[in-house]
Amino acid sequence: MHRTKVKVAEDALDANTTIAEANRHDFDHAGVRVVNLMSAPGAGKTTLLEATLPTLDARVGVLEGDVQGSMDSDRIAHLHIPVVQLNTEAGFGGECHLDANMVRSALGDLDLHELDLLVIENVGNLVCPAEFRVGEDARAMICSVTEGEDKPLKYPLMFRACELVVINKTDLLPHLDYEIEKMRTNLETVNPTARVLEVSARTGEGTEAFTEWLSGVAAREAAAV
Amino acid sequence: MHRTKVKVAEDALDANTTIAEANRHDFDHAGVRVVNLMSAPGAGKTTLLEATLPTLDARVGVLEGDVQGSMDSDRIAHLHIPVVQLNTEAGFGGECHLDANMVRSALGDLDLHELDLLVIENVGNLVCPAEFRVGEDARAMICSVTEGEDKPLKYPLMFRACELVVINKTDLLPHLDYEIEKMRTNLETVNPTARVLEVSARTGEGTEAFTEWLSGVAAREAAAV
Repeated sequence: MHRTKVKVAEDALDANTTIAEANRHDFDHAGVRVVNLMSAPGAGKTTLLEATLPTLDARVGVLEGDVQGSMDSDRIAHLHIPVVQLNTEAGFGGECHLDANMVRSALGDLDLHELDLLVIENVGNLVCPAEFRVGEDARAMICSVTEGEDKPLKYPLMFRACELVVINKTDLLPHLDYEIEKMRTNLETVNPTARVLEVSARTGEGTEAFTEWLSGVAAREAAAV
Repeated sequence: MHRTKVKVAEDALDANTTIAEANRHDFDHAGVRVVNLMSAPGAGKTTLLEATLPTLDARVGVLEGDVQGSMDSDRIAHLHIPVVQLNTEAGFGGECHLDANMVRSALGDLDLHELDLLVIENVGNLVCPAEFRVGEDARAMICSVTEGEDKPLKYPLMFRACELVVINKTDLLPHLDYEIEKMRTNLETVNPTARVLEVSARTGEGTEAFTEWLSGVAAREAAAV
C-alpha cells in the first residue's frame, strides 16, 4: 500500500522566497552584492545615493522602484551610473513595494557581470517593503529627522529588518523639536544590533560613512539567502 | 426553460465596498460626518489634529490607525477627545492601511450619536490607504515640505483621491530647497480640483483654515457612498 503524499501548497510569501533565491543565485553567479534600500517617501534615498555613489570605489548600478515616473532614475543616470526604473503602477492601484518577481523582471536590463554592487531603491513605504526579500545581501533604511523619533515603535518590522539605519537631514536639527538620543533609544528597543549613521545627504555631512558601508557590502563574500 | 443566472463573485475590493457602505449607513444614521486623513509617515497628521481639534465648533472623535502602539491615541486622549486606537499588526507583517472592515471593528468603541465629526487617522503610507474606502464623507491628505515637491507625480493615486491637500511644516521652508509653486504645479497635473492649504502644525500658522474645513465637513448633508 502506498501512503498518500501530502504537499502543502506554497503561499504567496513562499513564491516570493523561491524567486528571491533565484535572484540571489544570479547575483552570486555574477559576483554582484545587493543592497535593498528602504524608507518612507521623501526621506532622501535618491539624494543620499547622489551624494555617495560617485565617490564609491566599486562598480555600482541602481534599480529604482517607484509607483510611477522616472524622476529618480533620471537623477541617477545623470551621474553616468547604470540604472533601471521599475514602475509598480501596473498592480492594483500601484504596488506599495518591490517584490522578488518585480526585481527579477528588471535584471535583464542590467549587465550584472559589469557590477560589484547593485543598490535597489525600494518604493517609499515603511511597512510592506520589509516583508518581501528580493535576494539582497543587506537591507538598509533611511529615517529622516523630520519624521519624528517615534517611527521605530510604530513601524517595528521595517526597523528590525535592516542592519543599517541612516538618520538623514541632520542639517535641519536646529529647526526641529527632535532628540536623536530618543530616536536611538526607540530604535534599540526594536533592533539593538542595528548600526546607526547620522548624515545630511544635502550638505554631505557624515555621508562618507555610508559610502564606506556600501564599499564593505560590495566586498562581502557571497552567502546563501 | 429557465436561463442560468450568472453572478460574478465579489472580489476583495468589492467586499471592502460592501462594508464601507455598511459603515456609511451607520455614520448617516448617527448623523456623524467622517474624514479619512492620510499621509506619509511623519508628515504631521497627529500634530495637525492637536493644533486644530480643541478649537473646532463640533463634537469630534478620532480613530487612530497604526501598525503598532498607541502613542498617537494617547496624544489625542490628552486633549479630552474621544479616541480609539486601531492597530493593524495582526495582519501579515502589519497591514499598511486601514480598510472598511478594520474601521467597522472599532465603531462599537465609539458613541457615534455623541459625535458630529469622526476623523480617521490612517496608517502613514502614500500608496494603499488611497485604495480602500472606509465609508468616509471626505478624504484629505497631508504632505510635508520636507518630502520634496515630486510626491504628486510619484504617488498620483493618493493625491488624486483627496479633495484637500495640506502642505505642512511651512516653518521649515527657509531651511529647504523646496518650491511650493513647483509642488502646486505637480499637484495640479494629477488633481486640478484639489483644495490646497499651507500650514505649520508646529507653529499654528495657517491651521485655522484646516479647522474651518473640518467644520464645513461636519456641517455637510449626508450623501450616498
